[in-house]
Amino acid sequence: MSKFHILDIIEKKRDKKTLSKEEIDYVITNYTNNNIPDYQMSALLMAIYLNGMDKEETTNMTLAMANSGEVLDLSKLNKIFVDKHSTGGVGDKVSLILLPLVASLGVPVAKMSGRGLGFTGGTVDKLQSIPGYNTELSKEEFINNVEKIGISMISQSMNLAPADKKIYALRDSISCVESIPLIASSIMSKKIASGAQKIVLDVTVGDGAFMKDIVQAEKLAKTMIDIGTLANRETVCILTNMDEPLGFSIGNNLEVKEAVNFLKGNMPQDLKEVVFSLGAYMLKLSGLGDNIEQNKKKLEQNILNGKGYEKFVQLVQNQNGDITYLEDLNKFPKAKYIENVYAGKKGYISKLPAKSIGKIACYLGAGREKKEDIIDNTVGIVLKKKVGDFVEKNEIVAQIFANDMDKMNEAIENMNKIIEISENQTKIDTILKIIYG
Amino acid sequence: MSKFHILDIIEKKRDKKTLSKEEIDYVITNYTNNNIPDYQMSALLMAIYLNGMDKEETTNMTLAMANSGEVLDLSKLNKIFVDKHSTGGVGDKVSLILLPLVASLGVPVAKMSGRGLGFTGGTVDKLQSIPGYNTELSKEEFINNVEKIGISMISQSMNLAPADKKIYALRDSISCVESIPLIASSIMSKKIASGAQKIVLDVTVGDGAFMKDIVQAEKLAKTMIDIGTLANRETVCILTNMDEPLGFSIGNNLEVKEAVNFLKGNMPQDLKEVVFSLGAYMLKLSGLGDNIEQNKKKLEQNILNGKGYEKFVQLVQNQNGDITYLEDLNKFPKAKYIENVYAGKKGYISKLPAKSIGKIACYLGAGREKKEDIIDNTVGIVLKKKVGDFVEKNEIVAQIFANDMDKMNEAIENMNKIIEISENQTKIDTILKIIYG
Repeated sequence: MSKFHILDIIEKKRDKKTLSKEEIDYVITNYTNNNIPDYQMSALLMAIYLNGMDKEETTNMTLAMANSGEVLDLSKLNKIFVDKHSTGGVGDKVSLILLPLVASLGVPVAKMSGRGLGFTGGTVDKLQSIPGYNTELSKEEFINNVEKIGISMISQSMNLAPADKKIYALRDSISCVESIPLIASSIMSKKIASGAQKIVLDVTVGDGAFMKDIVQAEKLAKTMIDIGTLANRETVCILTNMDEPLGFSIGNNLEVKEAVNFLKGNMPQDLKEVVFSLGAYMLKLSGLGDNIEQNKKKLEQNILNGKGYEKFVQLVQNQNGDITYLEDLNKFPKAKYIENVYAGKKGYISKLPAKSIGKIACYLGAGREKKEDIIDNTVGIVLKKKVGDFVEKNEIVAQIFANDMDKMNEAIENMNKIIEISENQTKIDTILKIIYG
Repeated sequence: MSKFHILDIIEKKRDKKTLSKEEIDYVITNYTNNNIPDYQMSALLMAIYLNGMDKEETTNMTLAMANSGEVLDLSKLNKIFVDKHSTGGVGDKVSLILLPLVASLGVPVAKMSGRGLGFTGGTVDKLQSIPGYNTELSKEEFINNVEKIGISMISQSMNLAPADKKIYALRDSISCVESIPLIASSIMSKKIASGAQKIVLDVTVGDGAFMKDIVQAEKLAKTMIDIGTLANRETVCILTNMDEPLGFSIGNNLEVKEAVNFLKGNMPQDLKEVVFSLGAYMLKLSGLGDNIEQNKKKLEQNILNGKGYEKFVQLVQNQNGDITYLEDLNKFPKAKYIENVYAGKKGYISKLPAKSIGKIACYLGAGREKKEDIIDNTVGIVLKKKVGDFVEKNEIVAQIFANDMDKMNEAIENMNKIIEISENQTKIDTILKIIYG
């Protein structure tokens, strides 16, 4: 007989008391093992949602979830592993660029990514759109690759943080998603389970992000940094704008092409700021340079000298991807129809709402609504203008890539509805804030 | 497709918004039908526990639960039905006395009672301890009895308020019992489903009651009166003390004997106050007299002239009970062992804690911890003194009735621990407050 009882634990949190580490371990272990039924867990989650958890509780929950399944052990490589994570957005191809780039500067990269639901695919979906690229390596192959070439990027197939998976699914079905301690512990538990010793987080803010305003985003960032501190995982949070899509392209092939072009030196301004900021902190946390500005210069150098691109080619080749696609981006299959979206009037682009654009891309087939959905790699949207750009009436603002003319027409109609043009110029700051412990 | 979605409803209550009648109906109907799973209902219940419900929401929930199953239709009798309910206590044999007594004054009584878990049995268990008494009548027999002799008391076998049953069981397993709107709607839904047009509630307060303090009890009472008002069921709440057991006897046969003796004119003071207060309001609500003091006199008269007792005999006879047991109470089987509990010192009895005494009675076999447990009708406790009474050292304070000598010894030991005697006299007020709409 355990000395704990779930009814007492629910009652404590219901009455705004603090749960001990042992009580949290008891809950997470027994929920993972199905000894605690969903209906009790959901009462506890609602009590946590409404009454909160302090930073010790949140950290204890994070560690309990991280230890609920396999934990990737990278210790044989004897290196500092800095993981990168984004809270998600539209047009986010940062990992595809950033990770080979930092690897080219000596940061070891052992990246397991999810497929993800949402407007467009996750990093794994994007990598898989390169013909031949194998995302399903064994743990041993994965670690060997990191040892051999300094980087491997695969699909998350280990049984990492199963408690988090179960709790996330339950939260989703009981309207308990938007809770800072629950979001923070979910993110951090997966990072810790996947072997991260240090963590750089891209906390997106705005229309297309999970956090709609900077106040909430800062709270989330601070909570994750607190967890990092208490769990001995140095953590940096970079708050980045997600009011408009990141870069110009949305959709799997389109984003891979934009990522490759970036590595070849063609860098959209907002994407560059995000990649270089995250990269500079990854270098710092890896012990490869304390000066952030100098780190950014090193990153830029490895774009200009082609070493970042070479590392990406090496990664793709090493995982059986067809690198001729990277050399000649025209080899990627194309959507059947490509049509333009024109500016309805002259002025400054004032809104390219990320969430709505993401939804349109998803509607075209670029994303998944259900786990079983198959992503169409060829469809999507390429912006020709960004917020703050001047357009003449009838100038092209975006291109739609579709395989279905009805969907194309609906996408164009919707794009016309959501793009806003005004007389005054709006400026979007990409990097909103950097927070560390 | 319904226009409601459980996720939106959970979110609303989570965010302290008010649920509409239609939303509440949707939840109750679909939870009863198993279309809403327990885990979603438990999140909603925790949100209700923490964020509350206003009186309209509570009334709508009450009515939705009342209408979730069968509703007893007494309209063919063309009378006003006033139901009586107690929030429970130790030594509570009020229904056995009160209902025949008011029936003898012309109040129609159609009473369905539960068995109840708890320290001692419910009203049905007590009635069943009279050999032959049939508590399992069909609805038709039940209504015919009420028509014929003005009273019938049976076991609750209809599918009354199944939503309440399901929700109560769930609340019990997620630490969401002690919520005023949930308790109030649970009680009132059962009353409304069992055909009550007007309701007199005995809201017990103190050590042996569900409500430990008068502030909470008043809140509960006011909430039930609000429901009564909005649901067009005139309701009166009488707050009564439950710090010590009601009357002298605890245990099924012992309580039946005390009830019969009461009807024969032997009335313990506290029990008399409770019975006459509840009865006076039942008469008032039935339209049989507006003056409470005069109503009490009528009740006392029908004790003294034997009409209350005669009605009880008629009730028992009409339901096949052996009335020779009522005439000669010595016919009831006796416990194997009867032992005294003596006062450890001289002074005034200052505490006979109801809950602890109830637990001792239950341990002796007088109650049920699980639905399947069988009640031993012969065991229990008879108090010889009440709080405020003076005792000499070694005077008898109580008698224990047991069928197991080990249990007897433990019961005596525990009684000695919990009985308190002090130099100063404590007075307990039985009727604490009367609240009506």
